Amino acid sequence: MGKRKSHRKKERIKYSSIHQVPGQVTYVGSKTSEVPSVEIINYNKERVDKVHSQNVEDAFNFNKEETITWINVNGLNHTKEIEKLGKHYNLHPLILEDIVNTQQRPKIDDYDDYMFIVLKMLYYDEHNEFVNEHLSIAVGKNYILTFQEADGDVFDGVRERIQNARGRIRNSGSDYLMYALIDAVIDSYFTIIETMAEKIEVIEDSLFLENPEEGITQDIQDLKREILKIRRSVFPLREVISRLEKSDHELIDQKTNSYLRDLYDHIVQISENIEIYREMTWGLMDMYMTTISNKMNEVMKVLTIMASIFIPLTFMAGIYGMNFEHIPELHLKYGYLYFWIVLIIVFLGMIWYFKRKKWL
Amino acid sequence: MGKRKSHRKKERIKYSSIHQVPGQVTYVGSKTSEVPSVEIINYNKERVDKVHSQNVEDAFNFNKEETITWINVNGLNHTKEIEKLGKHYNLHPLILEDIVNTQQRPKIDDYDDYMFIVLKMLYYDEHNEFVNEHLSIAVGKNYILTFQEADGDVFDGVRERIQNARGRIRNSGSDYLMYALIDAVIDSYFTIIETMAEKIEVIEDSLFLENPEEGITQDIQDLKREILKIRRSVFPLREVISRLEKSDHELIDQKTNSYLRDLYDHIVQISENIEIYREMTWGLMDMYMTTISNKMNEVMKVLTIMASIFIPLTFMAGIYGMNFEHIPELHLKYGYLYFWIVLIIVFLGMIWYFKRKKWL
Amino acid sequence: MGKRKSHRKKERIKYSSIHQVPGQVTYVGSKTSEVPSVEIINYNKERVDKVHSQNVEDAFNFNKEETITWINVNGLNHTKEIEKLGKHYNLHPLILEDIVNTQQRPKIDDYDDYMFIVLKMLYYDEHNEFVNEHLSIAVGKNYILTFQEADGDVFDGVRERIQNARGRIRNSGSDYLMYALIDAVIDSYFTIIETMAEKIEVIEDSLFLENPEEGITQDIQDLKREILKIRRSVFPLREVISRLEKSDHELIDQKTNSYLRDLYDHIVQISENIEIYREMTWGLMDMYMTTISNKMNEVMKVLTIMASIFIPLTFMAGIYGMNFEHIPELHLKYGYLYFWIVLIIVFLGMIWYFKRKKWL
Amino acid sequence: MGKRKSHRKKERIKYSSIHQVPGQVTYVGSKTSEVPSVEIINYNKERVDKVHSQNVEDAFNFNKEETITWINVNGLNHTKEIEKLGKHYNLHPLILEDIVNTQQRPKIDDYDDYMFIVLKMLYYDEHNEFVNEHLSIAVGKNYILTFQEADGDVFDGVRERIQNARGRIRNSGSDYLMYALIDAVIDSYFTIIETMAEKIEVIEDSLFLENPEEGITQDIQDLKREILKIRRSVFPLREVISRLEKSDHELIDQKTNSYLRDLYDHIVQISENIEIYREMTWGLMDMYMTTISNKMNEVMKVLTIMASIFIPLTFMAGIYGMNFEHIPELHLKYGYLYFWIVLIIVFLGMIWYFKRKKWL
Amino acid sequence: MGKRKSHRKKERIKYSSIHQVPGQVTYVGSKTSEVPSVEIINYNKERVDKVHSQNVEDAFNFNKEETITWINVNGLNHTKEIEKLGKHYNLHPLILEDIVNTQQRPKIDDYDDYMFIVLKMLYYDEHNEFVNEHLSIAVGKNYILTFQEADGDVFDGVRERIQNARGRIRNSGSDYLMYALIDAVIDSYFTIIETMAEKIEVIEDSLFLENPEEGITQDIQDLKREILKIRRSVFPLREVISRLEKSDHELIDQKTNSYLRDLYDHIVQISENIEIYREMTWGLMDMYMTTISNKMNEVMKVLTIMASIFIPLTFMAGIYGMNFEHIPELHLKYGYLYFWIVLIIVFLGMIWYFKRKKWL
Ligand SMILES: [Mg+2]
Ligand SMILES: [Mg+2]
Ligand SMILES: [Mg+2]
Ligand SMILES: [Mg+2]
Ligand SMILES: [Mg+2]
Ligand SMILES: [Mg+2]
Ligand SMILES: [Mg+2]
Ligand SMILES: [Mg+2]
Ligand SMILES: [Mg+2]
Ligand SMILES: [Mg+2]
Ligand SMILES: [Mg+2]
Ligand SMILES: [Mg+2]
Ligand SMILES: [Mg+2]
Ligand SMILES: [Mg+2]
Ligand SMILES: [Mg+2]
Ligand SMILES: [Mg+2]
Ligand SMILES: [Mg+2]
Ligand SMILES: [Mg+2]
Ligand SMILES: [Mg+2]
Ligand SMILES: [Mg+2]
Ligand SMILES: [Mg+2]
Ligand SMILES: [Mg+2]
Ligand SMILES: [Mg+2]
Ligand SMILES: [Mg+2]
Ligand SMILES: [Mg+2]
Ligand SMILES: [Mg+2]
Ligand SMILES: [Mg+2]
Ligand SMILES: [Mg+2]
Ligand SMILES: [Mg+2]
Ligand SMILES: [Mg+2]
Ligand SMILES: [Mg+2]
Repeated sequence: MGKRKSHRKKERIKYSSIHQVPGQVTYVGSKTSEVPSVEIINYNKERVDKVHSQNVEDAFNFNKEETITWINVNGLNHTKEIEKLGKHYNLHPLILEDIVNTQQRPKIDDYDDYMFIVLKMLYYDEHNEFVNEHLSIAVGKNYILTFQEADGDVFDGVRERIQNARGRIRNSGSDYLMYALIDAVIDSYFTIIETMAEKIEVIEDSLFLENPEEGITQDIQDLKREILKIRRSVFPLREVISRLEKSDHELIDQKTNSYLRDLYDHIVQISENIEIYREMTWGLMDMYMTTISNKMNEVMKVLTIMASIFIPLTFMAGIYGMNFEHIPELHLKYGYLYFWIVLIIVFLGMIWYFKRKKWL
Repeated sequence: MGKRKSHRKKERIKYSSIHQVPGQVTYVGSKTSEVPSVEIINYNKERVDKVHSQNVEDAFNFNKEETITWINVNGLNHTKEIEKLGKHYNLHPLILEDIVNTQQRPKIDDYDDYMFIVLKMLYYDEHNEFVNEHLSIAVGKNYILTFQEADGDVFDGVRERIQNARGRIRNSGSDYLMYALIDAVIDSYFTIIETMAEKIEVIEDSLFLENPEEGITQDIQDLKREILKIRRSVFPLREVISRLEKSDHELIDQKTNSYLRDLYDHIVQISENIEIYREMTWGLMDMYMTTISNKMNEVMKVLTIMASIFIPLTFMAGIYGMNFEHIPELHLKYGYLYFWIVLIIVFLGMIWYFKRKKWL
Repeated sequence: MGKRKSHRKKERIKYSSIHQVPGQVTYVGSKTSEVPSVEIINYNKERVDKVHSQNVEDAFNFNKEETITWINVNGLNHTKEIEKLGKHYNLHPLILEDIVNTQQRPKIDDYDDYMFIVLKMLYYDEHNEFVNEHLSIAVGKNYILTFQEADGDVFDGVRERIQNARGRIRNSGSDYLMYALIDAVIDSYFTIIETMAEKIEVIEDSLFLENPEEGITQDIQDLKREILKIRRSVFPLREVISRLEKSDHELIDQKTNSYLRDLYDHIVQISENIEIYREMTWGLMDMYMTTISNKMNEVMKVLTIMASIFIPLTFMAGIYGMNFEHIPELHLKYGYLYFWIVLIIVFLGMIWYFKRKKWL
Repeated sequence: MGKRKSHRKKERIKYSSIHQVPGQVTYVGSKTSEVPSVEIINYNKERVDKVHSQNVEDAFNFNKEETITWINVNGLNHTKEIEKLGKHYNLHPLILEDIVNTQQRPKIDDYDDYMFIVLKMLYYDEHNEFVNEHLSIAVGKNYILTFQEADGDVFDGVRERIQNARGRIRNSGSDYLMYALIDAVIDSYFTIIETMAEKIEVIEDSLFLENPEEGITQDIQDLKREILKIRRSVFPLREVISRLEKSDHELIDQKTNSYLRDLYDHIVQISENIEIYREMTWGLMDMYMTTISNKMNEVMKVLTIMASIFIPLTFMAGIYGMNFEHIPELHLKYGYLYFWIVLIIVFLGMIWYFKRKKWL
Repeated sequence: MGKRKSHRKKERIKYSSIHQVPGQVTYVGSKTSEVPSVEIINYNKERVDKVHSQNVEDAFNFNKEETITWINVNGLNHTKEIEKLGKHYNLHPLILEDIVNTQQRPKIDDYDDYMFIVLKMLYYDEHNEFVNEHLSIAVGKNYILTFQEADGDVFDGVRERIQNARGRIRNSGSDYLMYALIDAVIDSYFTIIETMAEKIEVIEDSLFLENPEEGITQDIQDLKREILKIRRSVFPLREVISRLEKSDHELIDQKTNSYLRDLYDHIVQISENIEIYREMTWGLMDMYMTTISNKMNEVMKVLTIMASIFIPLTFMAGIYGMNFEHIPELHLKYGYLYFWIVLIIVFLGMIWYFKRKKWL
C-alpha cells in the first residue's frame, strides 16, 4: 500500500483565457490541429455536391436558396476561419465565443433567422479515456454550420443517408438535418451508458477478489466524477430538446416535431439510465467497506483461534516447567502421559467450541 | 471467501442497433419467436369472434364500424408483420420504431385519430429472474392493437370478461378496453411489490444468521438495481395515466374518466410502495455493516478474555521456571500449593472482572 | 448471537383479490366481524335519534330533508350490506370498491351531489402493534356515511357533542360534521407522533447500555418501516384537506372554510413532526455503529494492555529459565532480587506509558 | 462506558389537551404565570401613553381612531383574559385557539379587517437550554395585539424607539409597528445561529481530544434534533413574510413593502445558514467514526508491535529452556552470549521493519 | 494524535450590530481602512476622466447627462461618506444598510430610476484563506456606484477597456458597464472552482500516503464548510441574473440582453461545477474510512501472522521444558534434532497457509 501512483490524467480545466473582452473568440480547449478541416455538403432533392477544403471561403459559393448547405469545421483553434464564417452568416459575436468555448454547457439560443445549439459528443478514446468533444450547430433557413474540436465524429450515418438519399433527409429542410445530427449524437450516448454499466460491474466483481487493489477507492471516486461529468453534459440537453420541440421558430417544420419528440424520449431514457448508474456507483463504497470488514473478521478469527487454543496449552506446559522442589505430579510414573491426555482434551474442547461457534 | 462466483445474469442492454435511419423498425430485445402469433378478438354488444393466426392480414377483414377489434401480436422480431399492420392502420413510422424498441420508456403520444401508449409488463419468470416485457397499445375509434415481446400476458381476465360479457366491457368502446388492459398490467405490478417485500425480508433475516453468505453485499446491490429498474418502468406510467385522465381526446368517453382516476390511484399506491421498499433496501447495507461489526466484537472478546486470563498465569509459571540459584519460594514445603492458590485467585479475579464488564 | 428469532408480525399485504372486474366490491383487509355493526345518528337543532342495528336498511327511514343522518358501518367484510347502502345513496361502483379496498391511499373524489373521502385511523393496539384502519366517508347534502374496518374509533367526542349539543355541531350542516370527524382522526395522529418520539428515545437510550440486544439493528429497520408507513397514510391527507379547503363544492359552507384551514395547519404540523422523527431515526444506525466501534476500542485496549505488559515480562522470565551452562546472572547472590527489581521497573514503565496515553 | 446518564430534558410535547371542541381555548404550553401581565402602549405622532396592568379591560379605553394601541399580553395560561380581548376586538374563535396552542406553526391568516400572524421567539435560557416561545400578533387598523407565553421578549428596542420617537415608527401606522416587531424577532434568530455554529465547533474540537466523552454520539443526535426544531420554527416564516410582502391587504401601506422585502432577505439568509449548519452537523457522525477508527488503529499498532517483537524472542528463550539431554548450544562456552547477540539482532530487525512501515 | 491544534481561523460572523433601527447604516464586516478610497471614472464616446480622492463630494461635479460616471468606493466602514453618496443619488435608506451589511446575500432590487445589485467577490488571499468580499452596485441612467469592503478588485480589465476604448464599452450605456462589472466578478469565480478541484485532489492523494495526517477529517469538514459558503455566495446570483435578463427596466437596453444571457450561461456552469465538487467532497470521508480500515487490516494481518506462527512453536518448546521425571523424548539421542525438524515443518506449514490465503 501507499506505493500506488495516481495515474489519473490531471485534466484540469483551463478557464484562464476566459477573462476577455466579451465577444472575443478565444479557444480554451486542448485539442488543436495545424490546419482547419472544412467539409461542405450541398444538396437538394436532385443532387449532392461534396467539397473538402482548408478554407471556409470555399463554402460561400454554395449559399443558394434552393439547396441545403452543411458546412462542418473541425479544429476550434482556427478562430480566424470561424470568425470569417460567422461574419458571412451574420452570427452574433457571443455565439462565436461560445463555439470555441469548450466549457460552454449544452444550450439553445433562438435568433430571428437562425438557431444556435451547443451540445457534447461523448466517447471513450483508444486509451479508454473519457473524451468530451464540444459541438456547436448553427441552423439557418438553407444552411447548417457545425463546429467540432477535432476530426472524427458520429455523423457518418447522416453523410451516408444524404449521399444515398436514404430516408426523408434529401426531401426535407435544414431542420430535419439538424434533427438527424442531434439524433446521431444522442444515439452515441448509449455507448457511454454501456461502458458505465461495465465499469460498475468490473468494480463490483473486483470487490470479491482475495486482494482487491488498494486503488479501488480512488477508482470508485473517479467513476463518480466521470458520471457527474457525463450527467452535466447530458442533462441540459433534455431542456434544449424540450425547447426545440415546443419552439415556434419558423425554421422548424410541423412534420419535424414528431422526430423531436422521439429525440426527447431518447434523451430522457439516457438520463434515467445515468441516474440508475449513479445510484449504483454511490453504493459501491459501502460495498467495499463491508468487504474490508468481512476480511478483517476473517483475519481476527484466525488469530483468535490460534491464540485461544495454544495460550492455555502453553500455560499448562509452563506449570510443569516450574522448579518447585515439591511438585507431586512430576514424580508420577505416567505423569507425562496424563499431562498429554489432559492437554488433548483441552485442545479438543477448544476445537469443539469454535466449531459450535461456526468459526471453524 | 473470494470463491463466490457471480451468477448474475449479465443482461447487458443492446443499444447497438439503435444507430438507424429514424423510423426504421428494428427489434432490439432478446425474446424471439419463429412465427408471429396474431390473436384477433372482434366484439360488440351482441357477439364475439375470435381468431388465432400467424398472419396479420387476417385481421383486416374485421375492421368494421360497428364492432371493436382487438388485435394482439406476440413476437416483436417479426417486424415485417408489424409494418403491415402499421400501414393498414396508418401508424406513424416513429411509432413502429417504438413498438419494437424494447428500451422505450412508458409514454403516451396523442395523434389525431388514435393514441399510442407504451408500458411494461413486469413479472418474475420460472427461474425467479425479473422480466420486463415491452408492451405497446395503439387505440383507435373501433380498434385496439397490442404488441408484446413474447407469448404469455396478464390479459386472460380481460379476455374472459369479453367472452362472457361480464362487467361493462361489451357495452363500452375501445377506450374502456384500453382501460381494462392497462388495469390488468397495473394490477400485476402488485405481485412485483410483494416479491420485493419478500426479498428484503429474506436479506434482513439472513443478516442474523451465524454466517451470512459472503455474497449478501452483492445481493443487496442487485436488489437495489432491480428496484431502480422497476421504478423506471413504473414511475413514468404515473404521468401517462395522469395525461390520459386529463386528455380531451375524442376517443375517451366521459364515463371512462372515473375508471382512469381509479387507475391513477393504483399506480400512485404502487409508486409509494416502491419508494418505501427503496428506502428499506438502502438501509440494508448499514444493517449488514453493524452485523459484521457486532461479530467482530464477539471475536475480539473471546480473544481478549483468553489472552487476558492466561497470559498473566503463564507469566507466573515462567517466574518459577527460572533457574536462579537462590529462589526462596521454590524451597518452601508448600510452595507449589501456595502457587496454585495465588494462581486461582488471579484466575477468579479476571473472571470476576470480565463478568462485571458483562463480557462473560 | 444468531439465536434471536424474528418476532415481527409478517403482515404481508394481500393484493391478490385486486385482480377483479372493476367496480367489484371485495374486501382485502384482515379484520373481520361476524355481523355488521350499523349505527345511525339522526339529528337537527331540536332533537337527536340514535339507533344501533345489524341491518343497514334501518337507516333508510331517516333520510329526510330537515335532518342530518350519520350512518356508521363497522365491518368491511360485509360487502353485501355496503352495496345496499351504496345503492340507496346512489354511490359510484368504484367508490364501493374503494370503501372495502383497505390498501386505497387517502384521497378525495368530488361527485355532483356528494363527496367521497378516504383516510386512515392510526393507533397502537393493546399489544403495542401499530394498526392502520381504513376509513371512508361519503358526504351528501343531509347525510354522512362512514365505513370502518372494525369496532372502536376516535369519534366518541363527536358523538358526545351531538348528543349534548356542545359547540356548533347541531346548528351546522353535514359539512361541519365531516370536518368534526376528520378533525377527530387528525387529533388522534398526535398520539402516534408521541409514540414515535418515545420509540426513538428508547432505542437511543438502549444504545448506551452495556450490552444492547443484538436485535437493535432490526428494531431500527422496523421503526424506519413504521415511519414510512405512517408517512404514507398521513402525507396524502395534506393534499386532501388542501383540496377540501379550496373546493367550491356546494356542500361546503363558507363558514366551514376557517375550520378546514385549521385542519390543514394541524396536518402540516404532524407531517413536519414525522419528517423530524424520520431524520432522527435514519441517524440511529450511525449512532449504533459508533457505539459498537467504541466498545470494540475498549475491548482492544484491555487486550493490548494485558498483552503489552505481560508479554515482555514473560520473555524476561523465559530468559532465566534457559539451561545454558554459563549464565552468570543465575549465580549472583541477589540475582532473583535484581530480576524482580528490573521486572517491576518494566511493569511500572508500561503502566506509566498507558496512563500517559490515557488508556488506563 | 455505559454509566453515562442521559441528562436530556425530556420535554415531551403535550398534545393531549388538543382533543377539544374546535374553537375551545386551551393552553398546552409549559410556561405559566399566576397573573397575566398586560402592557398597553398608545401612541401617535404627538404623544405616548404606557400602562401596565393585570386586566385586559384597561386597554379598551385607548381604542381611538387617531392613535395606535399596542397591547401585549404575557401568560397564555390566562385564557379568560385572552377571550375577553378576543371578544372586544372581534377575533375568530379559531384564532384564540391558535394564540394559546403553542404547537401551532408560524402562519399568517388574512381576515377582512385584521391580519393574524403566528411566529416563534427562539433563545437559549440561562441554563443554555433551547427555548421556543410562542408569539401571536393580531394587527388591525389602529391596534396591535401581541400574545407571549411568558415575560421577557426581544421588543425592548421597539419600545425604546416608540418612547423616544426614533426612526419612522411614531409617524407610521400599525403595519410599520408589525414590521418592527417581526424584525426584532428575526434579528434575534441570528443569536441562535451563532450558538449553533459554536456548538458544532465544540463537538468538532472535542473529537480530537484524547478521550472524547462517550456521550458525544448523543450530543450529535441532540444537536440534529435541535437544528430540525429550529428549522421548523424558522422555515415557515419565509412563506409568511413572502405572503405579507405580496399581500394587497388594505392594512399594509405601500411604503412598508420595502421594509418587508428587507425582512424577507434576512429570513432567507437565516434559513441558508441553518441549512449549512445542518449539513455540517450531519457530517459530524462520520467524523467521529473516523476518529474512533483511527484510535483503534493506534491501539492495534501498539499491540502488534509489542506482540510481534516479544513473541519470537520468548520462543527463542523457550528453546533453550528445554530439557533435552543433548542440546549442544547449551554447552558452548559463550552460548549465552551468542544467544543474546542473535536475540538483539532479531529485536533490531523487528524495530527496523516497523520503522520502515512507519508504525514507529 | 490528539496534539493537533486547530488552526482554523475562527471567523465567527458578527451579527450583533444588526439589532438596529431599520435603515441605520452600520458596517458589520471585518475589513476596515483609515480613509475611504473614492475612484471616479467619467466617460463617453469621446473622452475619459479619472479622479482618485478620499472625498465622495468630488464625484458630484461629473454628474452630467451626456457622460457615464462610475464611482467606486472602497472601505465600507466609512459609513458617513456612503450616506452622503446615498443622499446625492437619492438611494433608499434600506439600500444604504445593505451596502454595508456584509452578510447580505446576493440580490437585485428594482427601483423606479435605478437598480441595486448585491454580489460577492470571492478569492483566496496571500495566506490561501478564502475571502468573501461584499460588493454592491447601484445603476442609474448615467451613473454606476460600486461599493467594496477593501482595496483591490477584479475590475482592472474593465478599467483598461474604458481607458483604451476596447470593445463596445465606451459606446454603450450604464447597463453595459454594469454587465461588464458583473462579468468580471463571475469570471473570477472560475479561479475559485479551480482551487476547489485542487483541494479535493490534494486530500484524495494524501489519503493514499502511509500516514495521512490525523487532521484530514477536519480538513474534509472544513472543505465542506467552504464549499457550502461559496455555494451560498454563488447560487443566489443565478436568480439575480435571470431576473436582470427578464427585467423590462428601462435602464436595460435591448442589445445588452444577449450579454446578460451569456452571463447566465456562465453562472449556471459555475453552479454545476460547484455541485460536482460538492458531491466529490462528500465522498471523501467514505474514502478516508476505507483507507483507515485497509490499514487496520494490514496491522491485524501482521499480528495474526506473527502470533499464529510463534505461539504453537513456543508451546512446543514449553512441552520439552517441563520437568516430568519420565519424558522419553528428552532422552533420545537425536531428540533435539527431531524437535527442530518438527518445528520447521510446523513453521513452513503456517507460512504455506498464509501464502495460500494471500496474506503474505
Ligand atoms: Mg466573457
Ligand atoms: Mg470531431
Ligand atoms: Mg435516436
Ligand atoms: Mg453487477
Ligand atoms: Mg421513439
Ligand atoms: Mg448488470
Ligand atoms: Mg433513431
Ligand atoms: Mg407477452
Ligand atoms: Mg386496478
Ligand atoms: Mg422485515
Ligand atoms: Mg379505486
Ligand atoms: Mg451509509
Ligand atoms: Mg413486513
Ligand atoms: Mg380493479
Ligand atoms: Mg373502527
Ligand atoms: Mg384538530
Ligand atoms: Mg432523545
Ligand atoms: Mg388552529
Ligand atoms: Mg452515514
Ligand atoms: Mg425529546
Ligand atoms: Mg381542534
Ligand atoms: Mg415572552
Ligand atoms: Mg432585521
Ligand atoms: Mg469549525
Ligand atoms: Mg437589507
Ligand atoms: Mg434591520
Ligand atoms: Mg475590493
Ligand atoms: Mg464571462
Ligand atoms: Mg482527482
Ligand atoms: Mg457564452
Ligand atoms: Mg456515509
